Amino acid sequence: MSNRIITISREFGSGGRTVGKKVAEKLGIPCYDAELVQKIAEESGYAEEYIKEEGEYASGGWISTILSDRTNGLTNQDKIWNIQSRIITELAEKGSCVIVGRCADYVLKDKADCLTVFVHASLEKRAKRIVEEYGETDETPEQRIKDKDKRRDAYYRFYTDMKWGEARNYHLCLDSGELGIDKCVEIVAQLY
Amino acid sequence: MSNRIITISREFGSGGRTVGKKVAEKLGIPCYDAELVQKIAEESGYAEEYIKEEGEYASGGWISTILSDRTNGLTNQDKIWNIQSRIITELAEKGSCVIVGRCADYVLKDKADCLTVFVHASLEKRAKRIVEEYGETDETPEQRIKDKDKRRDAYYRFYTDMKWGEARNYHLCLDSGELGIDKCVEIVAQLY
Repeated sequence: MSNRIITISREFGSGGRTVGKKVAEKLGIPCYDAELVQKIAEESGYAEEYIKEEGEYASGGWISTILSDRTNGLTNQDKIWNIQSRIITELAEKGSCVIVGRCADYVLKDKADCLTVFVHASLEKRAKRIVEEYGETDETPEQRIKDKDKRRDAYYRFYTDMKWGEARNYHLCLDSGELGIDKCVEIVAQLY
Repeated sequence: MSNRIITISREFGSGGRTVGKKVAEKLGIPCYDAELVQKIAEESGYAEEYIKEEGEYASGGWISTILSDRTNGLTNQDKIWNIQSRIITELAEKGSCVIVGRCADYVLKDKADCLTVFVHASLEKRAKRIVEEYGETDETPEQRIKDKDKRRDAYYRFYTDMKWGEARNYHLCLDSGELGIDKCVEIVAQLY
């Protein structure tokens, strides 16, 4: 496989998705994020909203996923994991691209020529960003971030056996809050 | 303080020190590494070799450092920590520079305008590098690396209460084995 893939893992509110999109634009290659969710929805029959949650976060069916002995078959989350892993592999085979989230770094390990990136930022900067981006809710932005991070961390650890956000697991980690989104885009595109 | 400081934390054998030196050369600012050890030695009266170990690793006097209730005063490691923290702060006040290791990222937190960098590489790549750089010993390179990493991790955690090598603690983390030393130098210098 001679395609080059950029995988972007990101903390909620860090702007990692924006980094991914802008890098892809700059390099003239596709960026899979929402489109990936659509594809998984089509193949699995689950609703997109359900996949957004169950394909990246420990939520809803999580307790059954952890505790299940699978005697009654795979859990919903296992099924989504399998389908999204297959789709990610197919996309990487199809051509060079940017893939945001969904443990693509792990799925493509030893399968594709990847540049693996992790984007993070301080709680304060992320809180500011998510209010600007998604507006206010009943929960404080800090609560929303902590909850999302915790559930994403648990999901990542369960399916990959690796620690999410550990520098050693990525080729490049960037603090988008300190460096700025545009600098992050520049560096990732340059390393490609 | 208007000086700009680059702090480089690095895994043993990752070439982080070389990255620091080359960045400093490129930017025309000093790089403190061996010189820092000399200064600490002069002020503390301890031998340089002793400081190299006790100022970054959990070793020799470590058990007494952890278990001591300090009723008989500070442990040797505490004393070295205090002196090296003061010297690092003074160097940062004196002018822009690169500081390699010694938890400078933590020491200068909220005190200086820092770009904090963590350099790492796979065990395999580091093993190759340390044999090239330091030659063979009775222990395998993998054993030497694991031992050094473990003791540096314990030291960092004890004095800073932070996790060494966690992406969130740095503005930039680089896999020097995958990206190459020269690319790392380029990126750090560019972000300065």
